[in-house]
Amino acid sequence: MTRFARKNDLPVSLARRYLEPGPIVLVSSRWQDQTNIMTLGWQTVLEFTPSLVACMISAGNHSFEMIRQSGECAINLPTTALTDIVVGIGNTSGADIDKFSHFGLTAAPAQRVRAPLIRECHAHFECRLHDDAMIDRYNLFIFEIVKAQAASTPKYPETLHYTGDGVFMVSGKVISRRRQFRPEML
Amino acid sequence: MTRFARKNDLPVSLARRYLEPGPIVLVSSRWQDQTNIMTLGWQTVLEFTPSLVACMISAGNHSFEMIRQSGECAINLPTTALTDIVVGIGNTSGADIDKFSHFGLTAAPAQRVRAPLIRECHAHFECRLHDDAMIDRYNLFIFEIVKAQAASTPKYPETLHYTGDGVFMVSGKVISRRRQFRPEML
Repeated sequence: MTRFARKNDLPVSLARRYLEPGPIVLVSSRWQDQTNIMTLGWQTVLEFTPSLVACMISAGNHSFEMIRQSGECAINLPTTALTDIVVGIGNTSGADIDKFSHFGLTAAPAQRVRAPLIRECHAHFECRLHDDAMIDRYNLFIFEIVKAQAASTPKYPETLHYTGDGVFMVSGKVISRRRQFRPEML
Repeated sequence: MTRFARKNDLPVSLARRYLEPGPIVLVSSRWQDQTNIMTLGWQTVLEFTPSLVACMISAGNHSFEMIRQSGECAINLPTTALTDIVVGIGNTSGADIDKFSHFGLTAAPAQRVRAPLIRECHAHFECRLHDDAMIDRYNLFIFEIVKAQAASTPKYPETLHYTGDGVFMVSGKVISRRRQFRPEML
């Protein structure tokens, strides 16, 4: 049996710690009796409190209507250990396959939404649709993160950052300039 | 005299190549007789054609009204060679100092907007405000990139990705999974 890293609760405002660097994420959803997973690279943090994130979910994705109808999803942070699965998920459709079983991923219950979490990921952000005003025009969903969890180690996981054309940049070294910040900017 | 890398024109749809990985960028602006620069980490690509990017520019920034009033800006991509300047720009205000002169940066004329480019940066994306519908609610500016330029080397520049708390993740190695992509997904 696979052992998974234990996840610790985080204040939802700390989602920026994981999402602001711009990683590829896996968005899981549930609508009626189906679950699905999609890859997403077009997202940005929008606010700390409430904890808002804006995600451009192209209408061509099978997940689009599932997320719009359910008004929920989970944003899961994969590391490079899942690179091939991330690519596989991005190149298949939930209209054709069950992505959890096809890719051997483990669905875990979330606490605040019905969308399943992907246990193999480093962090989970449970999301409720906060504002649908930009969906029709830009496919832009504004979510509120209502629950956040992350593994405690490694502190800076090796994440994937997509550049297009099948090429990913992998997160590298970490540098602090904390002493050069004004306290109110931290 | 400092020599700068020559910048080559890019199709605007290739802005994703530089912006999708989630780097900190420097946003330059001009309004009336003043220029300014701010750091920005909360942005996402939104569309290829037109080339759209959504930027959350907090209303507390001196740049906020300059960009809203002028309807323009330039997004410049700094590399780790500029780390201390990036931090300095993020911890000072254009209300107090002239950031170009204070940080010894070189303003270069843009082609399609009046906002100056920052010549020390690796790439430049000239932007016009495309949609202001989400500014009042979320400080979210939707820009169209109308001109894109980048240095030809290095192909994958070492960029800064902010995690909060004064800590940056630096872009690391590059991996290709091109062969695992369906052609229409590239």
